[in-house]
Amino acid sequence: MNLTLDTLKQAYAAGKITPRSLVKQLLAEAKTYQDHNIFIHLLSEAELEPYLTMLESSHVNSMPLWGVPFVIKDNIDLAGIPTTAACPAFSFVPEKSAFVVQQLINAGAIPLGKSNMDQFATGLVGTRSPYGACHNAFDFDKISGGSSSGSALALALNLCSFSLGTDTAGSGRVPAAFNNLIGLKPSKGLLSTSGLLPAVRSQDVMSIFALNAQDAYQVFEIASTYDKADEYARQELTLTPPAWPAKPVIGIPDKLSFYNDELAKAQFFDTLATLKNLGYEIKEINFEPWIETAKLLYGGAWVAERYTAISEFFDAHESDMDPAVAKIIAGATSLSAQQAYQGNYDLQKAQRLTQAVWQKVDCMLTPTTPTIFDIKAVQADPIKLNSVLGTYTNFMNLLDYAAVALPTGFRTDGLPAGITLFSAAGSDRQLLKLADQLHTEFVNTAGAKQTPLPIAQPEHFNTPHHIPLAVVGAHLTGFPLNGQLIERGAKLLKTTKTAPKYAFYELAGGPILKPGLVKINPESDQKGASIEVEVWSMPKQHLGSFLALIPSPLGLGKVELIDGSQVVGFICEPIGLEGATNISHTGGWRNWMKERNA
Amino acid sequence: MNLTLDTLKQAYAAGKITPRSLVKQLLAEAKTYQDHNIFIHLLSEAELEPYLTMLESSHVNSMPLWGVPFVIKDNIDLAGIPTTAACPAFSFVPEKSAFVVQQLINAGAIPLGKSNMDQFATGLVGTRSPYGACHNAFDFDKISGGSSSGSALALALNLCSFSLGTDTAGSGRVPAAFNNLIGLKPSKGLLSTSGLLPAVRSQDVMSIFALNAQDAYQVFEIASTYDKADEYARQELTLTPPAWPAKPVIGIPDKLSFYNDELAKAQFFDTLATLKNLGYEIKEINFEPWIETAKLLYGGAWVAERYTAISEFFDAHESDMDPAVAKIIAGATSLSAQQAYQGNYDLQKAQRLTQAVWQKVDCMLTPTTPTIFDIKAVQADPIKLNSVLGTYTNFMNLLDYAAVALPTGFRTDGLPAGITLFSAAGSDRQLLKLADQLHTEFVNTAGAKQTPLPIAQPEHFNTPHHIPLAVVGAHLTGFPLNGQLIERGAKLLKTTKTAPKYAFYELAGGPILKPGLVKINPESDQKGASIEVEVWSMPKQHLGSFLALIPSPLGLGKVELIDGSQVVGFICEPIGLEGATNISHTGGWRNWMKERNA
Repeated sequence: MNLTLDTLKQAYAAGKITPRSLVKQLLAEAKTYQDHNIFIHLLSEAELEPYLTMLESSHVNSMPLWGVPFVIKDNIDLAGIPTTAACPAFSFVPEKSAFVVQQLINAGAIPLGKSNMDQFATGLVGTRSPYGACHNAFDFDKISGGSSSGSALALALNLCSFSLGTDTAGSGRVPAAFNNLIGLKPSKGLLSTSGLLPAVRSQDVMSIFALNAQDAYQVFEIASTYDKADEYARQELTLTPPAWPAKPVIGIPDKLSFYNDELAKAQFFDTLATLKNLGYEIKEINFEPWIETAKLLYGGAWVAERYTAISEFFDAHESDMDPAVAKIIAGATSLSAQQAYQGNYDLQKAQRLTQAVWQKVDCMLTPTTPTIFDIKAVQADPIKLNSVLGTYTNFMNLLDYAAVALPTGFRTDGLPAGITLFSAAGSDRQLLKLADQLHTEFVNTAGAKQTPLPIAQPEHFNTPHHIPLAVVGAHLTGFPLNGQLIERGAKLLKTTKTAPKYAFYELAGGPILKPGLVKINPESDQKGASIEVEVWSMPKQHLGSFLALIPSPLGLGKVELIDGSQVVGFICEPIGLEGATNISHTGGWRNWMKERNA
Repeated sequence: MNLTLDTLKQAYAAGKITPRSLVKQLLAEAKTYQDHNIFIHLLSEAELEPYLTMLESSHVNSMPLWGVPFVIKDNIDLAGIPTTAACPAFSFVPEKSAFVVQQLINAGAIPLGKSNMDQFATGLVGTRSPYGACHNAFDFDKISGGSSSGSALALALNLCSFSLGTDTAGSGRVPAAFNNLIGLKPSKGLLSTSGLLPAVRSQDVMSIFALNAQDAYQVFEIASTYDKADEYARQELTLTPPAWPAKPVIGIPDKLSFYNDELAKAQFFDTLATLKNLGYEIKEINFEPWIETAKLLYGGAWVAERYTAISEFFDAHESDMDPAVAKIIAGATSLSAQQAYQGNYDLQKAQRLTQAVWQKVDCMLTPTTPTIFDIKAVQADPIKLNSVLGTYTNFMNLLDYAAVALPTGFRTDGLPAGITLFSAAGSDRQLLKLADQLHTEFVNTAGAKQTPLPIAQPEHFNTPHHIPLAVVGAHLTGFPLNGQLIERGAKLLKTTKTAPKYAFYELAGGPILKPGLVKINPESDQKGASIEVEVWSMPKQHLGSFLALIPSPLGLGKVELIDGSQVVGFICEPIGLEGATNISHTGGWRNWMKERNA
């Protein structure tokens, strides 16, 4: 059955299923995939009982995720169930669920199981686990991607509606790409890390796998509740992602590595062709600084954080660990504080070097991985092949981006392929909105079980950092004050008209000519005109300084557009009409200026 | 003569002095203080010639710092003059001046000399230099404070108009306190560190010594030019310091250490008594988290940054160094990356723990130092006594504050004493404004040469992060929408009235009653009323979300106050007057609500 959130809600509302019947069915199905090594712990009926009992005392509409089954990576705590991080010797039973898990449970979601992973979240392959390698949902011989391998597989094989991973170096994106899923790597600090076993404490985020961007958004809304007990938590509205125009300009690397995987390469260039056909502007960006930054994560001192996270355990139990993971962490024990600080300096330099990209493009796009490997090949050469997979993912948290892995179709060998869209911290919702718009341009189904995609719904996505602003006079494109919008990072959304309810004036005085947009009394004899406006997306944090520049008798209030919506825009005080010239007949400032100057 | 900026400018304008005559006089005076060990390099007449020649081809009003003599700490580059960091073996001659130095020279300032300092800016005492210990400007036997010792002394002894120091652990504040000066420790990243030899690269800032807060502000305005080549540089407007009410609420530590210095203690409590008499609200804050954070700077791994900064030189020249400095840095060579990251985690926790303080108070106030020492005592026990001096300063950059050291008078033994005001990053200008208001309440003169203080000038200080906002209706204190201001961190500045040019209405419709403030045509018969308004200081970054909440026909434009000033405030579209009730006679919403509900 289709487990996407809206469909599931409808099935519940129609009485076709109950949480109890669904869970029973999913547990039975999960057992048919035992060879895939998806779960470390699948909840028993007894363990599920408290969640089902709670739901049975409430109604499907009482909670946003009522009865939604989800799966949890096994480095994230679920109360009463062991957290192993795929290392049995490390296992402990947490008393409390992770903060994010608890938010989801409070919203009605049902935790089905704890999923397999690369041990201690150290890997991008899904093979570094004593619970067995995870097998790709499309090809049993191929890797699933990791480290959040089991969480991705459970979703791709339709055993849940969404799942939680973690993503330090790419662990929430690589398995999404390999299993035809949306992988949201949120901006650092938006999803609490309380109850998440650290891998690289300063760079860890919890991530979300979903069947489509609308589902990812719904889960993100609940999962991103601010956790004041997590000292790395950040309030979403303190981040300041740039505004985007209606169609964001997309950057791609000037040089691409596919490690001789011609199928991956062909698929990626198909994707670019599709985007160009859709009218997106695509710019090549010198990608060297990103590639260099990616190397810092394992080549620099950050790996010492992996040791710091489990140093006591490691010192006592190195031999109980996956050999590849143990080897990586052992390399960290001899790193010096000097190296750690040098890494910080290098990163600071890289951050500065790369931030100018947002002057050129609105978001960046890369392949999620250069290629994919057979499980056997990875087992034979575990560290080198793993590092290939991080080519386009390792720099992401270091440079403080939000990212969404998006499926873009199937290679000629039937394996799924995908891209990653990324932009500045706080752009999570903008990226998901774009992913939603693009998803159905590339594929028709999600996961490996033919789940259909919903129709794109731009209005589903709230982007809280920016505000549409209607301008009508000297701020229009090409007019003297337009620079006040540009220098604040505002982007043009559309040129449209007001509702036919306005009179339009040139006010008395100068030197810069001022427009007066005045809503007329519907009961008067005056006939309303529809006036040309440009609607710009303005970063909210800059609206204050913009407002400060606006002289009396103008101001900002609400303007009604021809589609009936209300946006913030220029209004005029009554006193402004003294000596003003009615120019309503021109339909807008641009026409009036032509007429006036003629 | 009085070298404060305004007085100096007047003397130049009146033709009483020239840059050449002034410089000659100052060089001669400087030589009379050779026993104080102020300078490592005093510029020769030949070295000064290019600066004088440039000034002689322009007019005093052509540059904001025309002919203003200043002194530069010897870890900051001045082109063509050796940078020693008080270590002769380390000396090199830079080709370029530091970015900040160049901005000041471009503004007309004259670099007079490179000043003595604790070697490699490692110290708060001013005794750790092969160029000799710096002697306090008030008492030859006492320490000057460090590490920016020479810069503070040069100013206190009236050899320049301002000076540059650096401040990692307190080096820009401790010498200010010991020499009766203003010491501005800017927010990290506002003054470029290009051309500054790092001490603790992630925590270093350049600092400003000035005779009064107005001078410090003028220098800050020029010195804080954004340097895009400095990867640690931050744009001032990206910082988000909280808004302050007219009289900021001041926090003080609940426990204070003066190390048995009763004179220091008495002086500090006198200062608090003065503030209380002036009507400031003072709250005790549990200071433990700050004290713990202060310990991280030397007790944790950050000292490894000191080694990183000069590791090559240190490895080859340890024996050429000041023994105390060498000992501190040697301790850093064995620190591990794990310790460095653990330090980051501890700091992150401390940042979270301490940030709630800005919900309780607007700025914090501490003694700048607990006590002062004899030079001989420090030389006998150089590390322990030094660390005492950092009690109230070491945490400042780690916790990302701006700080101003402010003189508060003289102890009964004649030594100057002072406090430090600090608040969130970006509050530099707010702190200087407060320091300006308080300065003359405590002392009459600056430095050791009886330089008079100017009258406080609040309008001198622009605080660009906040905007005054006039509210007239349901947003007033005690009315239903006031919470929209409070939750955005707005603070009440004053209750006042509009200019007598308005009509005031209750608009039709509800449920929340709306006011309509309408400026009337001065040529009409209608008589204008003066309407009660509250002016709030609103963080600019939150004005956008506030505006989004305002329903048609209201908006934000400019409101004229009774003092003739214009502030952003509520306006009303013409259409709003349909069916509205004129309530101008009440003089304001508060009265109208009483009348209406009576």
